[in-house]
Amino acid sequence: MKFNIALLAGDGIGPEVINEAVKVSDAIAKKFNHEITWTPALTGACAIDAVGVPYPDETHEICMAADAVLFGAIGHPKYDNNPSAPVRPEQGLLLMRKKLGLFANVRPTFTFPSLIDNSPLKRERIEGTDLVFLRELTGGIYFGEKGRRDDGETAFDNCVYTRVEVQRLAKKGFELAMTRSKKLCCVDKANVLETSRLWRETVQAMEKDYPEVEVSYEFVDAVAMRLVQWPNSYDVLITENLFGDILTDEASVISGSMGLMPSASVGEHTSLYEPIHGSYPQATGLNIANPLATVLSAAMMFEDAFGLKAEADAIRAVVNKSLEQGIVTEDLVAKGTKAYSTSEVGDWLVDNL
Amino acid sequence: MKFNIALLAGDGIGPEVINEAVKVSDAIAKKFNHEITWTPALTGACAIDAVGVPYPDETHEICMAADAVLFGAIGHPKYDNNPSAPVRPEQGLLLMRKKLGLFANVRPTFTFPSLIDNSPLKRERIEGTDLVFLRELTGGIYFGEKGRRDDGETAFDNCVYTRVEVQRLAKKGFELAMTRSKKLCCVDKANVLETSRLWRETVQAMEKDYPEVEVSYEFVDAVAMRLVQWPNSYDVLITENLFGDILTDEASVISGSMGLMPSASVGEHTSLYEPIHGSYPQATGLNIANPLATVLSAAMMFEDAFGLKAEADAIRAVVNKSLEQGIVTEDLVAKGTKAYSTSEVGDWLVDNL
Ligand SMILES: CC(C)[C@H](C(=O)O)[C@@H](O)C(=O)O
Ligand SMILES: CC(C)[C@H](C(=O)O)[C@@H](O)C(=O)O
Repeated sequence: MKFNIALLAGDGIGPEVINEAVKVSDAIAKKFNHEITWTPALTGACAIDAVGVPYPDETHEICMAADAVLFGAIGHPKYDNNPSAPVRPEQGLLLMRKKLGLFANVRPTFTFPSLIDNSPLKRERIEGTDLVFLRELTGGIYFGEKGRRDDGETAFDNCVYTRVEVQRLAKKGFELAMTRSKKLCCVDKANVLETSRLWRETVQAMEKDYPEVEVSYEFVDAVAMRLVQWPNSYDVLITENLFGDILTDEASVISGSMGLMPSASVGEHTSLYEPIHGSYPQATGLNIANPLATVLSAAMMFEDAFGLKAEADAIRAVVNKSLEQGIVTEDLVAKGTKAYSTSEVGDWLVDNL
Repeated sequence: MKFNIALLAGDGIGPEVINEAVKVSDAIAKKFNHEITWTPALTGACAIDAVGVPYPDETHEICMAADAVLFGAIGHPKYDNNPSAPVRPEQGLLLMRKKLGLFANVRPTFTFPSLIDNSPLKRERIEGTDLVFLRELTGGIYFGEKGRRDDGETAFDNCVYTRVEVQRLAKKGFELAMTRSKKLCCVDKANVLETSRLWRETVQAMEKDYPEVEVSYEFVDAVAMRLVQWPNSYDVLITENLFGDILTDEASVISGSMGLMPSASVGEHTSLYEPIHGSYPQATGLNIANPLATVLSAAMMFEDAFGLKAEADAIRAVVNKSLEQGIVTEDLVAKGTKAYSTSEVGDWLVDNL
C-alpha cells in the first residue's frame, strides 16, 4: 500500500521524537512492502516565527490531502507567561482540530509491567489498568462565544453542545466499548449543567442500539476521585472537551508511563496521531527526549488509520522489547544503568524490528 | 461566649455525623465556658419531602440569624438517576451558597501519620502533604445563564466572572498564604478561556500588595497531574468554581483520609462548616458512618468563625488520639481489630477531651 502522511513536527522536542517515529515507520513499511511519502509542514511556535500564524493555510492543505497526520508537540516558553498574547501556538492546535473536524480525541491509559513501579500509585491500585478516554474535541467551552463586557471588568465563556455533536462522539464510544469489555462510562456534571443534561439524555437514548454495552453515568468530580482510587475499574469513558482535558491528563500520570502514552484524534476529514507529552522545551536539541510515545502513536496510525494491525503489533512488540531490555532514555533508566539517547533508542528499534 | 449555630443535618448519614459533632462541640463549650444554642433547620431531600423545596425560606432565615452554620450532607438515591428532575437536593445547596454569599470554599487536604498507608499513593509521594484549596463558590458556570435552543437540540451554559468576584476570592488566598508558607498557586485555563485570562490578570495585579507571597500560575490540566504526582509541592491554591469542584475532590482522595476532611464556606453573611464526604445513603441509620470529618469541621468553626484556637486544637488533639488508639469506625479499622460505631466514637471523644 501507499500512504501520504503529513508530518507536523512542531516545537521543542517535537522534531526529535518525530524523527525516530519516521525511522521506525519507514522500517516497518519496508518490511511489509508499503510506501510512505512524508510531507512536512509547519505548526506551532515555529510556524508563528516563520509565517506569523500557528496553523498556516498551507499546513492545513497538506493535512487535508494526507491519509493521516503525525504530530509532535507544540509550545514555546516565550508564550508561557502571557496567555493574552495576540498569537499563541495553542490557537493553532485549536484551529487545526476545528478545521480538520477532529471531533474525537482517543486517549488510552495502560501500564507496562516493567514500568509499573514508576507509578505514583501503589502497585495494587494501578495493576491491570487499561482504559480509554474519548474526549470531544471540537465543541464545548473551547469554541463557544467568549469575550468581555463592562469595559473589560466582566469576562464570559459560553459552553455549547448540540445533540448531533454528542451523538457522533457517543457513537464512537459505544463502538469502541463493543470491541473491548462492553463497559461505557459517560462523564458529566448533569446535576449542575444543562449541556451535561443534554449529554446524558442523548447517551441514554442511544443505549437501546447497543443492548450489550453496560452504560454508567458518573459526575466529573466523582471520576476525578475514582481515577486515583481504582483506575482499573474503568474501561471506555466518554466526555466533553474541558472535562476531557482535565481527566485525560490526570489519567495519564497514574500509569507512571506518561512519556509513553500515544493518542489519536479522529473525525471528518483525516486523523491525527501524537504523543500526549508536551514540547518539553528544556530538553530541546539535547537528544534525550523519550521517543516511545511518538513511536506508539505511529503504531496507532498503522492500525486505526490504515487498518494494518500486524504492522502496529510489530511496532508495539519492539517497543516492549526495548523496555524489557532497558534500551531507554534517561527518564526511564534504572538506577546505575546507562541511558540511551533519543536517536539510539530509535536506531535500536529499527534494528530489532 | 455565647453562640447561636444553625444545624443543617441534611440527608443520609448527615444526622448521625452531625449528632456526634454536636456532642463534641457541647463538651468543648462546657469545658471552656461557652454556651451554644443549636437551631436545627431542614435542607436537602428531607426538606423537599417535608415542604417541597430543598432550601426553605425558614432555613435561610435561621442561617442568616446564626453565628455559623454546621452542615451534614445532602442527597438521596431517588434523585440520582434523574438529573432533570424539577426539584433536586443539589439545587438547595447552590441556592444556599448563593443566598448566604458563601463565595469561598476552603478545602484543606492533609495527612494523618497513622493513616498514611490508606492513601492510594505511595508513602513517599503523599508524606508531608498539607495543602488548601480556595474554591470560588458563587460564580462561574454554576450560576451563569443556561438553557436550550433549537427545540431542545442545543444546550448552553454560560461561564461568567467579574473582576470583583476574582479579587475577593484571591484576597482570601493571599491572606491565607501569608499565614502559611507564602506560596500561592492560581489555577486556570488562561490559554483557552477568557474568564481564566481575567482571573490571571486580576491576580497578577494583586501581587504587588503581597510582595512576600510567591505566586505561580498553572493550567488546570497540569494541576490535575501534579496533584497525583507531587501533592506535597502545593500549599495554597485558588481557583474558579468548576475547576475547584473537580480538583478538590481529586485532592481529597490522595491523602487516604477522605472520610476525615473538613471544609468551610465563608463569605458575606455567615460561614458554613461541613465534612466533604457525601450523604452515603447505603449507611443511613446503621450507626457506622465516620463522624470525624464533621467533628473536624466543628473544630474549623471554633477557630475560624469564633476565633477560638485553643478549643479547636483541643478537638483536633482528641481526634488524633482516637486515630492513634484505633477508636475508629469500620472504614478505618485495621485488619483483625474491632470497629466502633458512630456514636461510640463520639462518646469516646467526649470522654477523652
Ligand atoms: C494546549 C491546550 C489548548 C490543549 C487543550 O486544552 O486542549 C492541551 O491541554 C491538550 O489537552 O491538548
Ligand atoms: C452536589 C454538587 C452540586 C456540588 C458541587 O458541584 O458544587 C458538590 O459536588 C460539591 O462539590 O459540593
